[in-house]
Amino acid sequence: MFDVCLLGTGGMMPLPNRWLTACFMRYAGTSLLIDCGEGTQITMRLQGWSFKAIDYILFTHYHGDHISGLPGLLLTIGNSGRTEPVTLIGPRNLRRVVEGLLLIAPDLPFPIQYLELNGDTPVLELKDLVVTPFRADHGMPCFGYSVEIRRKPRFLPEKAKALGIPLPFWKELQKGNTVEHEGAIYEPSMVLGEARRGLKVCYCTDSRPRDSIVNGVKAADLFICEGMYGEEEKQTKAKEYRHMTFQEAATMAKQANVKELWLTHFSPSLITPYQYLDEARRIFPNTKVGKDRMTKVLKFADEENAGVTE
Amino acid sequence: MFDVCLLGTGGMMPLPNRWLTACFMRYAGTSLLIDCGEGTQITMRLQGWSFKAIDYILFTHYHGDHISGLPGLLLTIGNSGRTEPVTLIGPRNLRRVVEGLLLIAPDLPFPIQYLELNGDTPVLELKDLVVTPFRADHGMPCFGYSVEIRRKPRFLPEKAKALGIPLPFWKELQKGNTVEHEGAIYEPSMVLGEARRGLKVCYCTDSRPRDSIVNGVKAADLFICEGMYGEEEKQTKAKEYRHMTFQEAATMAKQANVKELWLTHFSPSLITPYQYLDEARRIFPNTKVGKDRMTKVLKFADEENAGVTE
Repeated sequence: MFDVCLLGTGGMMPLPNRWLTACFMRYAGTSLLIDCGEGTQITMRLQGWSFKAIDYILFTHYHGDHISGLPGLLLTIGNSGRTEPVTLIGPRNLRRVVEGLLLIAPDLPFPIQYLELNGDTPVLELKDLVVTPFRADHGMPCFGYSVEIRRKPRFLPEKAKALGIPLPFWKELQKGNTVEHEGAIYEPSMVLGEARRGLKVCYCTDSRPRDSIVNGVKAADLFICEGMYGEEEKQTKAKEYRHMTFQEAATMAKQANVKELWLTHFSPSLITPYQYLDEARRIFPNTKVGKDRMTKVLKFADEENAGVTE
Repeated sequence: MFDVCLLGTGGMMPLPNRWLTACFMRYAGTSLLIDCGEGTQITMRLQGWSFKAIDYILFTHYHGDHISGLPGLLLTIGNSGRTEPVTLIGPRNLRRVVEGLLLIAPDLPFPIQYLELNGDTPVLELKDLVVTPFRADHGMPCFGYSVEIRRKPRFLPEKAKALGIPLPFWKELQKGNTVEHEGAIYEPSMVLGEARRGLKVCYCTDSRPRDSIVNGVKAADLFICEGMYGEEEKQTKAKEYRHMTFQEAATMAKQANVKELWLTHFSPSLITPYQYLDEARRIFPNTKVGKDRMTKVLKFADEENAGVTE
C-alpha cells in the first residue's frame, strides 16, 4: 500500500485554517516528505504519521513557504529518537540553504545527507520506489517530483518447472537477472508473467504550465498540482508571479492523461476554492479541491480498489 | 495604554493546540515582538494586531523554537505593505543567524537593521518606552527583557505662573530640561509634580533562576516567565536542560516583588499546566498559567484600573 497525504493546501503564508502545501508519502517502511513550510510539523502531528520514520525530505524550491519549517521539523525528528540519517533532496544550493537554516538547529542527533538534483534523472531508486524530478517554471530553480512504485511481473513457477530450471536460480530470475547454468541461458522473460501496472503520484508546485511537467506526470494515478488562483481573470497575475490558475492545472492533467487531479497551494486571497471547481472540471472531470490532510491509499490495479479518505 | 499579548505558551515544538512562546506588545504606535517561533505569525493573525506596524523583533536566544518563524513573519510583514525598516535585536551573532535564515526570504521590501545586545544596558529608548535586557542562564547567550513605559511627572502650570516663568520655556521644563533666562535658572523640579509610577512588563525564557533576572524584573507590573515543568520532581531535569519549574519561577516573582506572574513555555509533556498552579501560588499568590493569546491592557496607576482579557 502506498499512502499519500496532502498535509496542507496554502501558498505564501500559513493561515489559521490552512497549512502550507506539503505532501507526505509512505510506502513499505519508507517515508518521504515533499516541501516543509512553517507549521508543516503541526499538520503532520494532526495526521499522526511517524516523525521518526522520515527518511527523505524533498524540496521543490527554496521559497520560504516551502522550506521554512525545516529546522523545526528536524528538531522534532531528533526529539522522536531518530539516529539514522535523514536525506535532503532539492535543486542546487541545497546545502548552502540548509546550512543557513541549521544555525538555529545545530545539534541534531542524526546525520544529514544532501542530494542535489542533477537535471531530470531519477534521484532515488530504492528497490521498487523511484523518485524522478521534472523541471517546473517559477523564475528560479524549481522541480516537481514523480514518485513511482514499480510493479514487478509475477513469477510463474509452473513455467520454471516446465523448463527444468533448478530451484536455486528462481530467485535471481524473479529479480529480473539472467542466469547461465551448464551452457543453458535462462532469461527472466521465460518465467515471468506480463508487465504489471505500478503506481505513480506526482507533485508540482510552484510553476507556470509547461511541457516538462506534462511529460513528468504522464499517466499518473494522482497528480497534485498547484492552483494558486481559481478566477480565470487572474491569469495575468499567475503569469507575473509564475503560478497557475485552476484551469491551467486542469489542462495539464488532461494533456498528461492522469487519473486524478488534486488542486492545492491556494492564494491567501482565495478563500473559497470550491467556487471555481466546476470550471476546472469542465476541462478535467476528475479534479478535486485539496483539503488539509486529504489522504489516499493507492493499491496496485491487481489488488483491491484504492480507498480514499477525504 | 500598553497592550501585552502572550501569543503562545509552548516550548520546544509547536503543537496543534499550543503555539510557541512569544510576546507581542503595543504602546503609542510602536509594536514590538519578543521571540518568533514556528507558527508565531499564525497566532498573531488570530490575535488580529497589525503585522505592518511591527517595528522591533527581539530575541532571547537562537534556539529554533524562539526564532524559526522569523523568515515567514518577515515575508508576511513584507506582504502587508511595510517599507519602513524593521529592527532586530538579540544577543551576539544576531546578524550571522538572521542572514542564514534570510536565504529563504531574500527579497524583502523593507530594510533590516541589527542591534546586538551589549551587556545589560538599555537597548532601546524611544521617548518614554525603554527596553533593557538582563542576562538569563541557558548554557548559551540568552537574555530576558524588561519593557518599561516611563511616566513623566505632571507639569504644574500654577507653579510656573507663580514663578513668573515665561510661557515659551514651559515646554522645555516639561521635557525635563533646565532653562536659563535673563540670569534666572529654572529647574524642572520647580514646575513638575511628584514622580509617577510608570509601567513595567518583563519577559524571561529560557533560563535557570538567577539574580540577574530577579534584579531585572524587580517590581514589574507583569512578569512573563518560563515554567517548563510543573512537577517539582522534574527539578533535576530542569537543571540539566537549563530550564525552570513553576516553583522556581514563582520564587523569583516573590523575590522581585512583581505584581503578577504569567507562566509559559510549557514542555510538550506538560499537558495540563493548571494541575500545578496551586503549588506555584503557595509561593507567589498572583500567579497565572499562561494561555495562548492571553492579553492584558496596562494603564498608569493614576488612570483607570487595568483591564485583563484572558
